[in-house]
Amino acid sequence: MLINFADMLSEVRSKKPLIHHITNYVTVNDCANIVLALGASPVMADDCGEVSDIVSVSSALVLNIGTLNKRTVESMLVAGKAANSLSVPVILDPVGVGVSKLRGDSVSEILNNVKISVLRGNMSEIRFLAGLGASSKGVDASDEDGSGNVITGAETAKTLSKNLGCVVAVTGETDFISDGCRTVAVANGHQTLKNVTGTGCMTTSLVGCYCGATRDYFSSSVAGIVTMGIAGELAFKEFELAGTGSFRAGLIDCVSMLDGKTIERMKKISEI
Amino acid sequence: MLINFADMLSEVRSKKPLIHHITNYVTVNDCANIVLALGASPVMADDCGEVSDIVSVSSALVLNIGTLNKRTVESMLVAGKAANSLSVPVILDPVGVGVSKLRGDSVSEILNNVKISVLRGNMSEIRFLAGLGASSKGVDASDEDGSGNVITGAETAKTLSKNLGCVVAVTGETDFISDGCRTVAVANGHQTLKNVTGTGCMTTSLVGCYCGATRDYFSSSVAGIVTMGIAGELAFKEFELAGTGSFRAGLIDCVSMLDGKTIERMKKISEI
Amino acid sequence: MLINFADMLSEVRSKKPLIHHITNYVTVNDCANIVLALGASPVMADDCGEVSDIVSVSSALVLNIGTLNKRTVESMLVAGKAANSLSVPVILDPVGVGVSKLRGDSVSEILNNVKISVLRGNMSEIRFLAGLGASSKGVDASDEDGSGNVITGAETAKTLSKNLGCVVAVTGETDFISDGCRTVAVANGHQTLKNVTGTGCMTTSLVGCYCGATRDYFSSSVAGIVTMGIAGELAFKEFELAGTGSFRAGLIDCVSMLDGKTIERMKKISEI
Repeated sequence: MLINFADMLSEVRSKKPLIHHITNYVTVNDCANIVLALGASPVMADDCGEVSDIVSVSSALVLNIGTLNKRTVESMLVAGKAANSLSVPVILDPVGVGVSKLRGDSVSEILNNVKISVLRGNMSEIRFLAGLGASSKGVDASDEDGSGNVITGAETAKTLSKNLGCVVAVTGETDFISDGCRTVAVANGHQTLKNVTGTGCMTTSLVGCYCGATRDYFSSSVAGIVTMGIAGELAFKEFELAGTGSFRAGLIDCVSMLDGKTIERMKKISEI
Repeated sequence: MLINFADMLSEVRSKKPLIHHITNYVTVNDCANIVLALGASPVMADDCGEVSDIVSVSSALVLNIGTLNKRTVESMLVAGKAANSLSVPVILDPVGVGVSKLRGDSVSEILNNVKISVLRGNMSEIRFLAGLGASSKGVDASDEDGSGNVITGAETAKTLSKNLGCVVAVTGETDFISDGCRTVAVANGHQTLKNVTGTGCMTTSLVGCYCGATRDYFSSSVAGIVTMGIAGELAFKEFELAGTGSFRAGLIDCVSMLDGKTIERMKKISEI
Repeated sequence: MLINFADMLSEVRSKKPLIHHITNYVTVNDCANIVLALGASPVMADDCGEVSDIVSVSSALVLNIGTLNKRTVESMLVAGKAANSLSVPVILDPVGVGVSKLRGDSVSEILNNVKISVLRGNMSEIRFLAGLGASSKGVDASDEDGSGNVITGAETAKTLSKNLGCVVAVTGETDFISDGCRTVAVANGHQTLKNVTGTGCMTTSLVGCYCGATRDYFSSSVAGIVTMGIAGELAFKEFELAGTGSFRAGLIDCVSMLDGKTIERMKKISEI
């Protein structure tokens, strides 16, 4: 499989797709800034009375349940249906889905009413949705599968992808992306990413940018995850001795300065 | 026209005016920090049941519709009317007003019920409110007028200022501020400001700080816009090679270290 | 009195307690990042329908009324009662409590219905709750007691602690922590902390992390306040000439790089 990351990045930067987010208030600023850093344009809007208008001028819709409430879940459903009717891709981040009944019920309702293009979560979240059970410890939780088995991650992504009919991406120490047929593992990234809030949310936003520019949802998922992973590696190299506050700003720095050649040189992808 | 920016900055730093914001959750932290950096004091509060109390101890009220909803628009109306009755200046940022019917209707309702002291937006937003039509692309959208005509920006600001009876400020590559009689162009700023979310919101907050300290709304609008422009120039010089994450922190850095002499030396203002 | 800060920090880092926040949207990202920097795990969730589920897997609950509204106050009550029934410690930050009737009423309702383990505020807020009256100027207001009398701060903390039956911490130029029997003064910190929004909120979150890991609420309050104070001193040394944007990132940096020896060496604590 050949994904041309340099071309995909160029597509984002030339088309500057508008990415509509209905997302949490914890990491929303980071998501907006990383979207701008990549070269796309963010809009965050969650009122039921305007989300359809905004979807209609957007190139992708990102739904993130990090700080969901009844009002915003309703808006997610309205926006998601509008996106489906306009063929705007919908990217879902089921933040902390195993932590509460409300999150489980809300994700079920979204999956039952909205056709998702990409589902991106950590191992706890994806295992929960795959019905495998998982002990979730908060929303910045460990991505480790209990078994530590690499095959498990790939299989989980593949199986859930077939069941839901969308691309499924599981991020963790190794990331797995599957569209049911093809499955790849990504070994980019750095463990310091777990010490900054919102790196998962930002990854989902990056996937949304690539989806909005290219409409190739599998390649976009890989590209978003590889982009964040490389940014983590570069930021760690630069700010290892400084700390996580500088590392966080460094992630945005790296994405804003990233060029296609660097992605192609640093990517660590393998087919499974 | 002579605006003494050094004196205005001193006024803010000695009076430390309290600036009440009803604003969006995307850039609210940046707004609070830039208000503190300039030397004023921020308070963010949006519940209908307390905004009147808070307006009563504030020196200015900033209304920003970035992530509006029915609840917060209601609070904006209550707070705006309370501000009017207490002669507290109201600064309105009509973020993305052309993007949805809800935003258009909400801004109309605010303008019909609250006397605004300063309206600050980008060209798309101000043209929309002037009834000239504009294609808006999100909230961090291009500030470019289709015609690229400098006179158009100045004329739009002047005409809308006369119609609304308030200061109108249009920010973009060149900024225009008019009170209906006087109109100035500001050439400070740097294009990297468009690659960070919230630079428009922060500009509005700075305008609010100067308004709260001096009660001269035209000069305050110029001062807020000049301050942000200079911060952009200085931050770019410092962080050009780092990226937009560092540039963002650099904006706050520069405002916090700014002195009157630097503003007077770097300002690029011309009367039209 | 001997508090072993190095051991307490180790406890946080080995146990990685989950700290549930119902907090404001201004500083929520900083709170999440400083919790991660210390070594704990944050979860922010405010919907009435899920807070009980989340409390049930958390080690501490932080309630912060910075941008309260009727919906979130209701969630605070539900979460607080759930925490009490599960013996999960509750840390309350009464942000700007003197500024509006709504804040006063809400804090009263919380104190009447929820057993608080630690109350942390600035002098204006604590004096207001102690019924001594205080002129509050916003939420990042001066921490100075009108009288400038050190004894007043210690006495206020001690008296309110006895009345409420919880640890009371007053932060300012000098911080005072009392459990009604023991009272200590902390002289760590730097005045630049007042020029960044959320340093009070972050301090409360740090207290929550130590409470969640150790269950010793008095020592945890001292530890959280000492940690923030030392971070302020170190960040100022590093970023004095840069400005408050860098200083803010520096706070997170310093907490993430902090070790027990540094705390023991830099702490400035005295019994009163």
